[in-house]
Amino acid sequence: MLTVNEAFETVINTAADFGTELVAIKQAEGRILREKIIADRPFPPFDRVTMDGIAIKWSSYAEGKRTFEIEDLQAAGMPQKTLHGNGCVEVMTGAIVPENADTIIPYEDLVKNETGSFAVVKEIKRNQNIHVRGSDVELGAVLLNEGIRIGGAETAVLATVGKDKALVSKQPKIAIVATGDELVEITDQPEQHQLRMSNVYALYNQFKNIGIEASIHHFKDDKEVLSANFSLLFKEKDAIICSGGVSAGKFDYIPQVLNELGVTILFHKVKQRPGKPFLFGLAENKVPFFGLPGNPVSGFMCLHRFVFPWLFKSLQFAQESIITRAVLASALKFDKPLTFFVPVKLSISSQGYLMADPHATNGSGDFATLTSANAFMELPENRDFFEAGEVYPVWMY
Amino acid sequence: MLTVNEAFETVINTAADFGTELVAIKQAEGRILREKIIADRPFPPFDRVTMDGIAIKWSSYAEGKRTFEIEDLQAAGMPQKTLHGNGCVEVMTGAIVPENADTIIPYEDLVKNETGSFAVVKEIKRNQNIHVRGSDVELGAVLLNEGIRIGGAETAVLATVGKDKALVSKQPKIAIVATGDELVEITDQPEQHQLRMSNVYALYNQFKNIGIEASIHHFKDDKEVLSANFSLLFKEKDAIICSGGVSAGKFDYIPQVLNELGVTILFHKVKQRPGKPFLFGLAENKVPFFGLPGNPVSGFMCLHRFVFPWLFKSLQFAQESIITRAVLASALKFDKPLTFFVPVKLSISSQGYLMADPHATNGSGDFATLTSANAFMELPENRDFFEAGEVYPVWMY
Repeated sequence: MLTVNEAFETVINTAADFGTELVAIKQAEGRILREKIIADRPFPPFDRVTMDGIAIKWSSYAEGKRTFEIEDLQAAGMPQKTLHGNGCVEVMTGAIVPENADTIIPYEDLVKNETGSFAVVKEIKRNQNIHVRGSDVELGAVLLNEGIRIGGAETAVLATVGKDKALVSKQPKIAIVATGDELVEITDQPEQHQLRMSNVYALYNQFKNIGIEASIHHFKDDKEVLSANFSLLFKEKDAIICSGGVSAGKFDYIPQVLNELGVTILFHKVKQRPGKPFLFGLAENKVPFFGLPGNPVSGFMCLHRFVFPWLFKSLQFAQESIITRAVLASALKFDKPLTFFVPVKLSISSQGYLMADPHATNGSGDFATLTSANAFMELPENRDFFEAGEVYPVWMY
Repeated sequence: MLTVNEAFETVINTAADFGTELVAIKQAEGRILREKIIADRPFPPFDRVTMDGIAIKWSSYAEGKRTFEIEDLQAAGMPQKTLHGNGCVEVMTGAIVPENADTIIPYEDLVKNETGSFAVVKEIKRNQNIHVRGSDVELGAVLLNEGIRIGGAETAVLATVGKDKALVSKQPKIAIVATGDELVEITDQPEQHQLRMSNVYALYNQFKNIGIEASIHHFKDDKEVLSANFSLLFKEKDAIICSGGVSAGKFDYIPQVLNELGVTILFHKVKQRPGKPFLFGLAENKVPFFGLPGNPVSGFMCLHRFVFPWLFKSLQFAQESIITRAVLASALKFDKPLTFFVPVKLSISSQGYLMADPHATNGSGDFATLTSANAFMELPENRDFFEAGEVYPVWMY
């Protein structure tokens, strides 16, 4: 049986590349950038006024001049004007600094005389209130690298350099499959021995949260049905995420069906709780099969510990997460030779620690438990006692 | 001039309610739930087999019986069978426990005899491997409360209780408005004194990230144009987010136009850097006007510090964020009597502290700065020195 790390390496090493596509900037949110973004102009592209007021020549002020006649007006969006004399040009935030001017005095440091001229009433500094051309970014500078996720700020950078489309990773086609004859549709009234399908909707919305619209399927526990349908999905999809059907039961046909379809089962079972029956296979065309345990908490954990890292690597996503580890808030005992994943509720302590408050789950674990937590903490297999205050990896969901 | 907290209270007190709507479960991701979700059955709804193996009567085992003849088969999805004799029923994970049986022995603790019967080869415990009816959740228990955000786990809970639709907060209609005659379209080649429009796309994608499709507008710095267009937007939208046009410049007509449209300006200017010119008004029909400064970093900060909290309250979102404060990683000096918002890059230290590494911004601040950070740290106005190791609020973006 593989350890969590061995299983993880096995999964990660099969990472694919779904290719790239151009998307409009308004569709780019959350997508992974696949091109370098270069400054096509310095930024700011011109000496830019940062306060409303007047533009003067420092030399006039240095020579003792304190009253400035208005010669012209320079607002944002106007082509550059020129300060010809020793007066001033009235300027607005965002305007280009007029030619010959080199210092901006804001209205709050000025008094307007009855004649319309401005008197300076405060000490000023040479070159003040000018955002100098190229001081933020030089022409040709790399503004964004490949592999980042496009958020609000990245969108603005794209717009600034004139990119109304961005080259991003294509989203994979994901199939989510429910197996289990005990499952009925949400809107059905289940018999005593039946359950409504729920895992697949949890998986669906977890993918949706990262911008991927998966397809949902439910197949009967029947070899022929499974074989025919999986055969089709391996042709059409980039990955199959299957919930249930991978333990050792008499009707857990999936390992057998996968074998017959030529899928190489890279592992079946991982030294972890929950999620021990987790199966991972690779079809001849390199489409992966993630056989998640049917238990809700197990499947959810495997999604975040194995499937999403595989997906992010396949999307060439290269940024680090912020939240990677946390402080265990209360002691735990787990003396099996398995990696133990415990649902935790994360919060920041008054001292600035990221604390992980473990949520008791009974052996089976249901989704109600998961809604009051927000991450799994990963407790290593080589320990039996985990003390409050120790730091362990966490996987947020 | 209001302090940050006063401005925040003013904004928050105008929180609206956009009403509710029913959405299909596959559209519910990220939405705010507006109904209590109650367990319509206990969970599990029946005594559920948790391992593949056999179901026996404990009494037979207690009397010394160690070999069990197979009487029947109970798989998941089959109506309940009965163990009539002293043998066993072969059972699969997820099945209902057969009548009269009370203990499940997994295959790994059994040896199958040539005759087909099973011999027990390990010590077993009474009632083992049964997930007892109602042990996770009692009938009628509250599974989800109003005001939570629907993620994967919550989706599964909805499905479990038969909800294929959920009652959620309606999304508001948001208008994002760019002002500034210096702005040109993304695809235009700007003249020297011009800039491409970028702030509005950053705002657009920040709203998109939380599931809201805003409309984007660009109005010329012309009183008539602004008046006519804002008048229309106040009728059609739930909020107007305007970028630029709120400083004291000659062409910053917006305060005047708002006054003429009957909008009450609740504040104009906040004791903060960046973002001092931030304006907030309320129309007669209670539609708010957020006048964000045109400076990219300022506008972005005001969005996260003021607009989103207003939005979340209006959506009746009642969950706490995980990340609310962090540890300043290096000392800072800021001696103005203003609250100072500094872009920081958050990460977890090896001891489990959430560290905030401040990113130097020049006075103006551009989006390139923001892409290498991921939050603003809020440093209070009554201090001039901020030491490494101190804890302050953060606002993630």
